[in-house]
Amino acid sequence: MNVQEYMQQVGKTARKASRVIASANSEQKNRALHAIADAILREKTALLTANEQDLAEGRKNGMEAAMLDRLTLDEKGIVNMAEGLRQIAALPDPVGEISEMAYRPSGIQLGKMRVPLGVIGIIYEARPNVTADAAGLCLKAGNATLLRGGSEAFHSNQAIAHCIHEGLRLAGLPADIVQVLTTTDRAAVGEMISMPQYVDVIVPRGGKGLVARITHEAKVPVIKHLDGNCHVYIDDTANPDKAFNIAINAKTHRYGTCNTMETLLVHAAFAEFILPRLAAGFWEKGVELRGCERTRIILGEKVWPANDEDWATEYLAPILAIRVVKDMDEAIEHINHWGSHHTDAIVTEEYGRARRFLHEVDSASVMVNASTRFADGFEYGLGAEIGISTDKIHARGPVGLLGLTSQKWIVLGDGQIRE
Amino acid sequence: MNVQEYMQQVGKTARKASRVIASANSEQKNRALHAIADAILREKTALLTANEQDLAEGRKNGMEAAMLDRLTLDEKGIVNMAEGLRQIAALPDPVGEISEMAYRPSGIQLGKMRVPLGVIGIIYEARPNVTADAAGLCLKAGNATLLRGGSEAFHSNQAIAHCIHEGLRLAGLPADIVQVLTTTDRAAVGEMISMPQYVDVIVPRGGKGLVARITHEAKVPVIKHLDGNCHVYIDDTANPDKAFNIAINAKTHRYGTCNTMETLLVHAAFAEFILPRLAAGFWEKGVELRGCERTRIILGEKVWPANDEDWATEYLAPILAIRVVKDMDEAIEHINHWGSHHTDAIVTEEYGRARRFLHEVDSASVMVNASTRFADGFEYGLGAEIGISTDKIHARGPVGLLGLTSQKWIVLGDGQIRE
Repeated sequence: MNVQEYMQQVGKTARKASRVIASANSEQKNRALHAIADAILREKTALLTANEQDLAEGRKNGMEAAMLDRLTLDEKGIVNMAEGLRQIAALPDPVGEISEMAYRPSGIQLGKMRVPLGVIGIIYEARPNVTADAAGLCLKAGNATLLRGGSEAFHSNQAIAHCIHEGLRLAGLPADIVQVLTTTDRAAVGEMISMPQYVDVIVPRGGKGLVARITHEAKVPVIKHLDGNCHVYIDDTANPDKAFNIAINAKTHRYGTCNTMETLLVHAAFAEFILPRLAAGFWEKGVELRGCERTRIILGEKVWPANDEDWATEYLAPILAIRVVKDMDEAIEHINHWGSHHTDAIVTEEYGRARRFLHEVDSASVMVNASTRFADGFEYGLGAEIGISTDKIHARGPVGLLGLTSQKWIVLGDGQIRE
Repeated sequence: MNVQEYMQQVGKTARKASRVIASANSEQKNRALHAIADAILREKTALLTANEQDLAEGRKNGMEAAMLDRLTLDEKGIVNMAEGLRQIAALPDPVGEISEMAYRPSGIQLGKMRVPLGVIGIIYEARPNVTADAAGLCLKAGNATLLRGGSEAFHSNQAIAHCIHEGLRLAGLPADIVQVLTTTDRAAVGEMISMPQYVDVIVPRGGKGLVARITHEAKVPVIKHLDGNCHVYIDDTANPDKAFNIAINAKTHRYGTCNTMETLLVHAAFAEFILPRLAAGFWEKGVELRGCERTRIILGEKVWPANDEDWATEYLAPILAIRVVKDMDEAIEHINHWGSHHTDAIVTEEYGRARRFLHEVDSASVMVNASTRFADGFEYGLGAEIGISTDKIHARGPVGLLGLTSQKWIVLGDGQIRE
């Protein structure tokens, strides 16, 4: 069987399984999630062995340390995976929720019912825990899943798949609800993103290159996250302490996350006052500063000159670009032009500025007087997230269970016909 | 300037204009809608002349009568276009609506704000009124629009564009908010659906061939409507009068609409009782019946034999396929397999059947004891619709103003940082 035939079969099986999981009740889905968590803990040794096999191959092939780190599954990681599934089980089930039922003049009663999307394809890279996390979230939202992890995590992913299938079976559900591809052929990805008849949405998780390529080639809707080029704008009406704390937190709380600030914008009338204090704070944490001309006049030559490339860059590193803007309009223009529409914050005490910033900044999360680091599924109370979307269609910002569902219209009548 | 350069320029202009209309307030947008309506009425003669030019060319090129009919813009059509714009002005403005604001344990207050999608590309065929309808809806939802109508309606569309631009200018808004392409080059469509940097969503309106081709080739999300293969299932627990009225209405109220019933499913235990009465009703209206074997045994050979092609067909004509099913499970299976996930109804008096049908039928609109003909934007109270989506992503079923918007997260804090 060639890859195309294999993927057609996988797709058909997923579509069929999606009907079963779509009408499974909450109790059955939660039982399955706990049974998978139990199986993962029970099979700890097998998981560690499989992971060691992947790590050994990685080392042999000269894999970089950061990649090996992402690939590693230790005892704590295994416990976390199981715990994550139990947390998903504890979340309220969104499927079947009926809302907005109201009578129309014709006498029909119209509302919406929340329903699963159907089949979700997840394409990801080295982290094996995504296999359990993503499958668990999709399962709870009533969807069947096709999972395609990185070939470097093949054995780990197959071992996790074994636990998932065992859990599903113990809960009386077909194992086919979650399929982890058994091929490492790259052509399988091309097939998976070109089967709208079998796959309803693709969620690519990984580097920008992977996501951009999949988005460009997909014939299936994609929920994606490209860049996290986030801004904090300090207005001249800001409270200096809040400005200091938020800017330091947004940059230095963690450097590698997508909601980390990458460019700081400061109102010209406030720059001379706040920048020296901020720079001292950043330098104390070892952050390299790159600034516009005005910034360098205020802070001196320890600040590297910033250019357009800096405004466009998601450093994911202890580097920060700083620009002094003449007013909030220029700040908003900068953010909408150079940003990635992910998360942007203003620090201000002025009502009108806060209101305008909220309205005019075109990003998935727009904040007033809070650190950009809050933009994630746990902080937003979604329980868990499949990713953070920088798209506007369907799901925007952190995507949790609701983003893995849709709504259909329901109409209740007593024999109404259209006149 | 070649087509590609032209479209790049059009796209850039649209993106820029989208920022202006996104932050226009309701009063400004409504003023523009009324000013466009006024201009359309004022320019009636010019519109009729332009339309006559298109019609003359159509006739010269041997255009079919049905197509000429769709292309025709008469005085009544012009008044309706203007009236439609005033109705859109009367709808509540969805943009800026803030909902679900709630405090999180961290102290931040989190909610959602409704925002425009940005730039919407509409690709349509002969009907020139779509130019005003679609532009009006997109405008009210705060979006810039690129419109590409059929080349056969070129002069009509340009004349309507002139009125739209005049109205926008009189309301103090840039005319670029609505751009009607001035080229009839087919390559322009290919460019338009491949510019995710300038176009946020494509809405194709027209025949299935056009929609399927655009969906397949687009690099931009598409809100689309493919088929309307709708079903009514009459359960053995149905009230016979409701069953008769709903089935007759769903088929014969209008033949050419996407929410018209195309296949009737009848429970085996009810078929002998209800089918003769129904057949008499359909025949009286001149509807051709095609049935499964069991249907033909009950109704005789005046019923043509139906095959798999019939179950898959949207007739858009006075033809109805009928199938006797052994129970509701078989009916649901038939609908989910052969249907187009548009609109499907059950007729039953039994609580449990109604509940299961609502849950298990995977369609944009699922109805109990009501005619499928209710599935449209006006009946659903959306005011107007840009189309009916058979997709699950973003918008499902009738798409009105809300479907032309998205939601961003907003966070209000008092200096909160992430610990």
